[in-house]
Amino acid sequence: MDKVRVGILGATSYTGAELVRMLAFHPHVSIEYVSSQSYERKALSSIFPALTGINNDLLISPQEAVGRGGVDCVFSCLPHAASAELLVPVIGKGVKVVDLSADFRIRDINVYKKWYCDDKHPDHPAPHLLEKAVFGLSEHYRGQIAKASIIANPGCYVTSVLLPLLPLLKGGVCIDMIIADSKSGVSGAGRGLKQNTHFPEAHENFSAYSIGHKHRHTPEMEQELSLAAGKPVTMTFSPHLLPVNRGILSTIYITANRTAAECTEIVKKFYANEPFVRVREPSDLPQTANVVHTNYCDIAFTGGTDGLPVIAVSTLDNLVKGASGQALQNMNIMFGLPETAGLMR
Amino acid sequence: MDKVRVGILGATSYTGAELVRMLAFHPHVSIEYVSSQSYERKALSSIFPALTGINNDLLISPQEAVGRGGVDCVFSCLPHAASAELLVPVIGKGVKVVDLSADFRIRDINVYKKWYCDDKHPDHPAPHLLEKAVFGLSEHYRGQIAKASIIANPGCYVTSVLLPLLPLLKGGVCIDMIIADSKSGVSGAGRGLKQNTHFPEAHENFSAYSIGHKHRHTPEMEQELSLAAGKPVTMTFSPHLLPVNRGILSTIYITANRTAAECTEIVKKFYANEPFVRVREPSDLPQTANVVHTNYCDIAFTGGTDGLPVIAVSTLDNLVKGASGQALQNMNIMFGLPETAGLMR
Amino acid sequence: MDKVRVGILGATSYTGAELVRMLAFHPHVSIEYVSSQSYERKALSSIFPALTGINNDLLISPQEAVGRGGVDCVFSCLPHAASAELLVPVIGKGVKVVDLSADFRIRDINVYKKWYCDDKHPDHPAPHLLEKAVFGLSEHYRGQIAKASIIANPGCYVTSVLLPLLPLLKGGVCIDMIIADSKSGVSGAGRGLKQNTHFPEAHENFSAYSIGHKHRHTPEMEQELSLAAGKPVTMTFSPHLLPVNRGILSTIYITANRTAAECTEIVKKFYANEPFVRVREPSDLPQTANVVHTNYCDIAFTGGTDGLPVIAVSTLDNLVKGASGQALQNMNIMFGLPETAGLMR
Amino acid sequence: MDKVRVGILGATSYTGAELVRMLAFHPHVSIEYVSSQSYERKALSSIFPALTGINNDLLISPQEAVGRGGVDCVFSCLPHAASAELLVPVIGKGVKVVDLSADFRIRDINVYKKWYCDDKHPDHPAPHLLEKAVFGLSEHYRGQIAKASIIANPGCYVTSVLLPLLPLLKGGVCIDMIIADSKSGVSGAGRGLKQNTHFPEAHENFSAYSIGHKHRHTPEMEQELSLAAGKPVTMTFSPHLLPVNRGILSTIYITANRTAAECTEIVKKFYANEPFVRVREPSDLPQTANVVHTNYCDIAFTGGTDGLPVIAVSTLDNLVKGASGQALQNMNIMFGLPETAGLMR
Repeated sequence: MDKVRVGILGATSYTGAELVRMLAFHPHVSIEYVSSQSYERKALSSIFPALTGINNDLLISPQEAVGRGGVDCVFSCLPHAASAELLVPVIGKGVKVVDLSADFRIRDINVYKKWYCDDKHPDHPAPHLLEKAVFGLSEHYRGQIAKASIIANPGCYVTSVLLPLLPLLKGGVCIDMIIADSKSGVSGAGRGLKQNTHFPEAHENFSAYSIGHKHRHTPEMEQELSLAAGKPVTMTFSPHLLPVNRGILSTIYITANRTAAECTEIVKKFYANEPFVRVREPSDLPQTANVVHTNYCDIAFTGGTDGLPVIAVSTLDNLVKGASGQALQNMNIMFGLPETAGLMR
Repeated sequence: MDKVRVGILGATSYTGAELVRMLAFHPHVSIEYVSSQSYERKALSSIFPALTGINNDLLISPQEAVGRGGVDCVFSCLPHAASAELLVPVIGKGVKVVDLSADFRIRDINVYKKWYCDDKHPDHPAPHLLEKAVFGLSEHYRGQIAKASIIANPGCYVTSVLLPLLPLLKGGVCIDMIIADSKSGVSGAGRGLKQNTHFPEAHENFSAYSIGHKHRHTPEMEQELSLAAGKPVTMTFSPHLLPVNRGILSTIYITANRTAAECTEIVKKFYANEPFVRVREPSDLPQTANVVHTNYCDIAFTGGTDGLPVIAVSTLDNLVKGASGQALQNMNIMFGLPETAGLMR
Repeated sequence: MDKVRVGILGATSYTGAELVRMLAFHPHVSIEYVSSQSYERKALSSIFPALTGINNDLLISPQEAVGRGGVDCVFSCLPHAASAELLVPVIGKGVKVVDLSADFRIRDINVYKKWYCDDKHPDHPAPHLLEKAVFGLSEHYRGQIAKASIIANPGCYVTSVLLPLLPLLKGGVCIDMIIADSKSGVSGAGRGLKQNTHFPEAHENFSAYSIGHKHRHTPEMEQELSLAAGKPVTMTFSPHLLPVNRGILSTIYITANRTAAECTEIVKKFYANEPFVRVREPSDLPQTANVVHTNYCDIAFTGGTDGLPVIAVSTLDNLVKGASGQALQNMNIMFGLPETAGLMR
Repeated sequence: MDKVRVGILGATSYTGAELVRMLAFHPHVSIEYVSSQSYERKALSSIFPALTGINNDLLISPQEAVGRGGVDCVFSCLPHAASAELLVPVIGKGVKVVDLSADFRIRDINVYKKWYCDDKHPDHPAPHLLEKAVFGLSEHYRGQIAKASIIANPGCYVTSVLLPLLPLLKGGVCIDMIIADSKSGVSGAGRGLKQNTHFPEAHENFSAYSIGHKHRHTPEMEQELSLAAGKPVTMTFSPHLLPVNRGILSTIYITANRTAAECTEIVKKFYANEPFVRVREPSDLPQTANVVHTNYCDIAFTGGTDGLPVIAVSTLDNLVKGASGQALQNMNIMFGLPETAGLMR
């Protein structure tokens, strides 16, 4: 089998470095370049000493990277706006693209503008490409992903909320209210320095942020939930900062016309043949430690007694199933490789 | 001013040791004895080396302790059932008692039996004392606490949920739905060894447990909320295990006929003169790190836009305002001492 | 290539579970059984939910396990004494054995007795097998390991101290004094519950234990250092408990007739072709985060100015290169498999 | 008793905020101003929400602060160079000063220049004041501190190394070799953002830095050890970054003509009447958790068997006994207040 030749933009972000590690050990991939704006000409392993011996390449500039030929697939771990802008010429060349930024996730350009644009970036950098993009939730868009040239890789929180809920909506369950109380490890906030992620302020601390209807992952969740429900869905989304490196756990409260046991049944059936979704019993609730460093998403349903809401609990590694692992899973699908290749560890 | 002479039962629990530390530095208190079943005749400071030089007393057995005279106030940090049983003779002597266990918190004996009794302890050990007990939520029962001889010190989660909600209900706000998604540091699970609180299993992990309507703090919350609402209240309570030593943060979703700003106003007014409740703005949400090692409870309200639930966020130290600090605050009230004595640090 | 058929004794220990994970993804291995005294007939994945879908086998008793045929290699993750005792019949069957306990590490039976025997276990369970055992420090005993039937897999601390020092001694460097100040993550203390590894006591804490010349890994280090030096070596070994799950970092002070740069050179040359040892520059000192979840050992040398000791810093994952990873590396060597198979992740 | 009126420069550093908290609850102190260059005109409690209700003052600029009268004592938590420069006019006014920076710690101006000066700050800002400064190691310079106008508050690592060793040297013990292997919580690195103290890089990580003879606290230790020994002392100092918020533990290896038991005896006698030094038995080694949030330094001696070095283990809270607590202790001594005032908690 010919190796898939890949390039990585934004390789010095946490998602970028995780992707490099996984791709380096992927049996059917060769990494052609790693790229970084800030660390051009330095070795990636000088920024991430953990990668010494795994990838010893020098980082090239994004401009040089997108000008290069010789790759079959480009992963972008760049921030939104920057990502779409740089990817335009790549896509022009017929190369397949997996974009881990938010740029191609939102189907409605006005929703994108409302949540992502500001004075500095007043417009979407490539609106004409939006309709070519496929939302890369592997278990739900596998068929389209296989034929796509642009994958909009879902947000980490988003994946943790959609995987338990979409099978219910697709299965005809009526859901009246959705509250997702999510908790994420600090790597989800990225490698950039901020006061609230300075060790002495995040450690032995726990806090809520952007709760209610303010976090940028909200419209992405609502878009996909609405599509599955066949009607507009509005929801509460409350992210919290968890003093761990990796892992998201979402506790999701729903008012539904089904018991927790019925929900378990529906979701279990839906994911019966999926290698990366594990549906658990209420006596064995998901825990972040069971999924970190893997591409698994664990799900369980409980609650719903005494007329109270049903509760879904889901967990995944924000850097793996929530980002780079799912990106690689999507690449496997696009190139007809075994879907679990490079993801079993 | 004569010193209040106190004794501590269960001094080798986490709440017991925290209480000893605070009482040792209290200007109007003298510790007459510290007691422990498991470590009788050992120095408390040999179990908690941090207390060396702060309290060097030998631990006496609970049986010896309750037989002793010469104390004005007894704190019990024993587990439920054991606590009430041991306290009976103490109360007979006219000594004031602050019980940190659940034994006197539930006013309805049948509710107590349903949630706390089992084959080993089929009955409440002292049902005749229930009506003498005052629920020790200091800010809400101050007048009764001042005259009480038995204080049922509230649960840690309970305090974090009641402090933001009671002023709303007392202020006439109609609340239809309550979901408390709470996260607690591991010291809340006590000093006893369990697999899920073994360091390598709790660290870099996050999990939900007893979620829905299963945790023993649920009936205690529902009891007080119902009293304030003037009608039965049922709620969802979802505790989670947070990989920190101390601190509880509750994210509470309510459907109310008020905006978040109105809730803030009502609660701010209610606690205007309270030394230990700080009501914050939505731009400055409570964080556990701001309250640990103190007797503060921080509260804020946000959300409620787009027809979605209002969200209360509250935080406190489970060992201080959630247990020993509030116990000491109640003692101050009972003995007419300045309410903040021994609590400013 | 035929798969190597393996069995794992003590599969519910931390090293056992880590080994199962690695072996499950090893391309040339099939796991024939997983065994546990305490959890017989339960699924391994019910004890370690993280392994769901990776290994779903029921645990069998050690007695049943050692009676079974059909395996080429048995890994023992049992405690010392228990391990050698159970392995005797296995070895009799001509099966190859990798013992992760201390039972076959100490070549001198009297040294073993001094450090490991007590009233309960007054003798070594299988002294006649001692001379057949090969010390499984892969990089230093590769030739013997390839032909061995019993591998005594080295201790975690031991590996972190020997890998930097042995090449110096073998290269003729004279070392007068050795002080190893080592720090280990809590998983090194095992899965059994103890007060000092209870989360609230280990978290936000740091402590020394068994420092000086008291820890059981000391004689194992001294044995191998003495062999390499060609004369008796005595050393100070000071372990500390680090509030992380995984990772050992050893800071080793030596008085040597070489500079740090010369030591770097010697060690770099020694490990030039080794896939799992990375020798770093003093400007890029080893950190535990760079090696956890991998089979790498990172090493650097610095200090030695102003007439002061040279300092070696080494780091590895106590559960991987310090235990199960090295065990698997040794199995690869014994069965002629590629040495890195199953270890790249 | 008239209150001591104090001002704090650099109040938004970690040591500054800790000092404000302690001073706010000190019975004989009134805080006249809090100052910060970066956050002028903001409330200190907006930067440290934990201080809400404890100190609600607006921050004034350092320039305004040093121009103000009406204070008896100024604490500087500014960085070196900036600190001495700003303090010059204050000292001119006869106000007492406690400087937590390194500016007045080094008695030999050339040593200061070698370790602290660079192109940007080529000279000491106030060399003429050096001889007026007293080294503020409270237990060793109490007499001089009582009469001093400038206190050079010792470094955190320095205090942890000097407290166990000085009594030995003063007691005539001959020490040939000193290696201090120290581990510090991340708050010791300050509030400024750096990549290595970004949560995801410091958490679940452990690393050495500036080890050997490179860290700026080395000359300060050597200066005081040399004074006590009556001859030049050179030592190895190896700091490490510990993934905890607070706490330093130093493991100190010495070659001495005394056993560990004899060292324990000498040091116990020396500190017999000290409220903040606790000398422990080898069976009860110091742990950081026993001293954090307090002004204690815990010390024990062990090792020394088999001809190996004696080992001192010491621990303190880097922000309390290692900085602000000792600063406050020094203020108490300077103003004739009870030495433990404001420090018991």
